[in-house]
Amino acid sequence: MSDLTLPGMPTAQLEHDPARDEVVQAFNKADPDGKRAAAVFRATFDQLYDGQHTGRFRWDQLFKTEKTHYGTLLEINLRREFDDVIDDSVEDHALDYSICGYDVDCKFSQGMGLWMLPPECFGQLLLVAWADDAKGTWCLGVVRATDANRRSSANRDGKTQLSLPGRQQIAWLHYGASLPPNVLLSLDALTLQKVLAPRSGQARVTELLRLVTERRIGRNTIATLAKQDDYMARLRDNGNGARTTLREAGYLIPGGDYEAHRAVARKLGAEVPDPGEVISLRVVPAEADAPWTVELDGRQWRLAHAGEPAIEPAPKLPDVRKRQ
Amino acid sequence: MSDLTLPGMPTAQLEHDPARDEVVQAFNKADPDGKRAAAVFRATFDQLYDGQHTGRFRWDQLFKTEKTHYGTLLEINLRREFDDVIDDSVEDHALDYSICGYDVDCKFSQGMGLWMLPPECFGQLLLVAWADDAKGTWCLGVVRATDANRRSSANRDGKTQLSLPGRQQIAWLHYGASLPPNVLLSLDALTLQKVLAPRSGQARVTELLRLVTERRIGRNTIATLAKQDDYMARLRDNGNGARTTLREAGYLIPGGDYEAHRAVARKLGAEVPDPGEVISLRVVPAEADAPWTVELDGRQWRLAHAGEPAIEPAPKLPDVRKRQ
Repeated sequence: MSDLTLPGMPTAQLEHDPARDEVVQAFNKADPDGKRAAAVFRATFDQLYDGQHTGRFRWDQLFKTEKTHYGTLLEINLRREFDDVIDDSVEDHALDYSICGYDVDCKFSQGMGLWMLPPECFGQLLLVAWADDAKGTWCLGVVRATDANRRSSANRDGKTQLSLPGRQQIAWLHYGASLPPNVLLSLDALTLQKVLAPRSGQARVTELLRLVTERRIGRNTIATLAKQDDYMARLRDNGNGARTTLREAGYLIPGGDYEAHRAVARKLGAEVPDPGEVISLRVVPAEADAPWTVELDGRQWRLAHAGEPAIEPAPKLPDVRKRQ
Repeated sequence: MSDLTLPGMPTAQLEHDPARDEVVQAFNKADPDGKRAAAVFRATFDQLYDGQHTGRFRWDQLFKTEKTHYGTLLEINLRREFDDVIDDSVEDHALDYSICGYDVDCKFSQGMGLWMLPPECFGQLLLVAWADDAKGTWCLGVVRATDANRRSSANRDGKTQLSLPGRQQIAWLHYGASLPPNVLLSLDALTLQKVLAPRSGQARVTELLRLVTERRIGRNTIATLAKQDDYMARLRDNGNGARTTLREAGYLIPGGDYEAHRAVARKLGAEVPDPGEVISLRVVPAEADAPWTVELDGRQWRLAHAGEPAIEPAPKLPDVRKRQ
């Protein structure tokens, strides 16, 4: 069983259950570092926030019915993402998924460990999930709802929960793993206020990139601030796009969709944006022997230190063709 | 009660229930023609199909877990769209919504009339919904789950359904109303095969606009065929965009986002596309006295008759600035 333990995983002797181990290994093989699952948790929060249309980015901004159904959306989105692992269960079977030929029910709870188990999943395998956007954390594991793993009490519907021993019998795929960042959620109140203050989407996007530097910013964050269809155009280097406006103040804003942009971030020693992300970097001309420089417009540039003033406009980013 | 009857509504004497009537009137006032509700049903199907990423456009292409949860998404999407009518129910109340101060549960069933009613909604108001994309139809009504309106049998969870008299006690907001069209679903098999055959998204979009004329086509249909982020660019009048390619064959493709384009469709006597939609029109130079003509590029044009060959390229559409 030692090959199924993971960093941060609560240690307990898991009972013998080859079916559970098969399911665990199928997920581990398909998503060894949990990046795919993490993206599903992130996308499910973002789907509920619907920031592009509503400007929302926090759990407490959701309608009650949206909060109630995070688990349903997660179940749908895991099914879509893990089409290589999860099959539909047989038509007249009551559980959500079939994995490695075993019926599996997908359960989410806003409270860690508080999954509600209906009678039809008793004795069956459960894919148990938990995530908290404010904490930036998620967990995903597999456990069998055996008699010993369930509490003996039940509510009127016959639903119960995992018992304490049952919770210790969860084979965790990932425990306390990190969600892709929700940048707006992580801002201090003053910065957030400044970012949200402008009346135009363009100005809000520009303000974010002015105030939040050296951090990867996802397309959903841009959409939430822009609140319009063509939100990625707010970054553009023309007219009043953010790249043009902020260049004057010494900002370089490489995007993760372009390898040439990613190389700029890498050479400057900054975090490298993934596809769909950007990063805002304040740069100044570099001394001849400075480490972490990049050549642009025929000169060397480095990241500005905290508080160091921009003495001239930032250079242009390399011309790019979009990666397909 | 006569002011609550609607075309196509099954007629029955509704029992006295002022709360139900208040809820009905709140919806009727907010959405007298049902356009808002129809758009929610359409968007919920499209959200599940996720055509931009999957190319799907039919119910039978969905995963089991997606089919199961149409009702959940509808509940979320109705709450979002009708924020002016629906409030969150009080935190510890079990039902989905509060409307005019009354607790209301939102129920969807794939089978007309087969809503599953859990004990917590007994005696309460229900917003009952049904939709079928293949039939292009939806229904929405309000009914109270009184003892007489429920079947006396229940399943193991204590859930039951409306009785036959209960179904006749539904105050229909809309009955047998039309869904906004799912164009791909409505094509004959041969046309559909031709539209889906090309390997590039651009070619599929162009083929649709070549084969499906004089019908409004929504942005979701374009996204489903293009299967890419920047799908609306596939319509563009430059490079190998559809407007450029099809102009040579006499096609004019006005878009509903632009009043000048809408005017072209209107003057030609075609259906007028709504924002987010386009319509593909074959045109030929018009005789001097022809009705339904539009002046473009300094000449008069009319719709081509069925089978009439295009004798020259279509004119350019008016220059436009996007409506905000």
